[in-house]
Amino acid sequence: MSIKLREHIEEITPISDSEFEYVLSHFKVKKLKKHQFLIQNGNLVKDDHFVVNGLLKAYYTNDEGKEHILQFAKEDWWITDYQAYFKKIKATTNIDCLEDCEVLCLSLHNRDKLCAELQKIEHFFRVKSNFGYIALQRRILSLLDQDAKGRYEELVSLYPSLLQRVPKTILASYLGVSRETLSRLS
Amino acid sequence: MSIKLREHIEEITPISDSEFEYVLSHFKVKKLKKHQFLIQNGNLVKDDHFVVNGLLKAYYTNDEGKEHILQFAKEDWWITDYQAYFKKIKATTNIDCLEDCEVLCLSLHNRDKLCAELQKIEHFFRVKSNFGYIALQRRILSLLDQDAKGRYEELVSLYPSLLQRVPKTILASYLGVSRETLSRLS
Repeated sequence: MSIKLREHIEEITPISDSEFEYVLSHFKVKKLKKHQFLIQNGNLVKDDHFVVNGLLKAYYTNDEGKEHILQFAKEDWWITDYQAYFKKIKATTNIDCLEDCEVLCLSLHNRDKLCAELQKIEHFFRVKSNFGYIALQRRILSLLDQDAKGRYEELVSLYPSLLQRVPKTILASYLGVSRETLSRLS
Repeated sequence: MSIKLREHIEEITPISDSEFEYVLSHFKVKKLKKHQFLIQNGNLVKDDHFVVNGLLKAYYTNDEGKEHILQFAKEDWWITDYQAYFKKIKATTNIDCLEDCEVLCLSLHNRDKLCAELQKIEHFFRVKSNFGYIALQRRILSLLDQDAKGRYEELVSLYPSLLQRVPKTILASYLGVSRETLSRLS
């Protein structure tokens, strides 16, 4: 599984065998079953997670019990409650597994340590964060401007592989439409 | 004006006089009048901008001519079309001045150069980007979950000073409500 993390880092910066071994020693493996929670609303969030295998969803449940899906994460993506992780506060979102999952966990302490010790890791996370920022801005524009059809078509073009793996009711929730509306779109 | 940038950097990392002088030498000053464009849809985007004085808005205009406001930026905030800047593609948004503005411009080349030469600058931008990511996630949740009243109250609590400076019609557009609805809320 460590090959995936190494390839992922090397998309942004080359890294030697010994450097990578050192980096990897700061991660912990976690295996979860489908439907299991990775993060629960109200708990402290120790780790960020690199997805080795599987598919997860991050969502927010409002006071009336309505769920809003913030993001999905599949292989090579990172997922956590970033507000809780970076600010060391309690999670306001839930993250659970849509499939059996294997993730590599990195605590904030270890992330900061690696970034301080190896500039290439600081560089890696800076670049990743920039890409993440762009993806969120695109999501905001999509929420502001697109109707259900436009949001569906955007999802298809950006992440075609997700459509096969995400249950239709959850896809409908991500798009903010009813299950019936989604059936007409897809 | 350089004091503001130095204080801004030192919120995240200490920096010596000579280091700061070196960093500052990579920025260019730009002064703009109210209503002037900083970024125009369809143009390449050379610079990111640190706001020294003034207030700007970034917005997207769809095919029907409807404007959606992505963000505001006031003193100590950064603003550009980040997708265009980082990916070296043409802007899809416009950014214009709601007040006379003074900004410090940093090209992507100079940003990458400074990050490579001074790890504390790479650290600074990594941390800033993490905060930016969290703010965008909050905006997404607010768009998904809050009604107009909730979005207005969130804006008031997060950025009270903006309310005095942003014209009501533009505030209404940011919140995605009519000018009349905003009057009932405020």
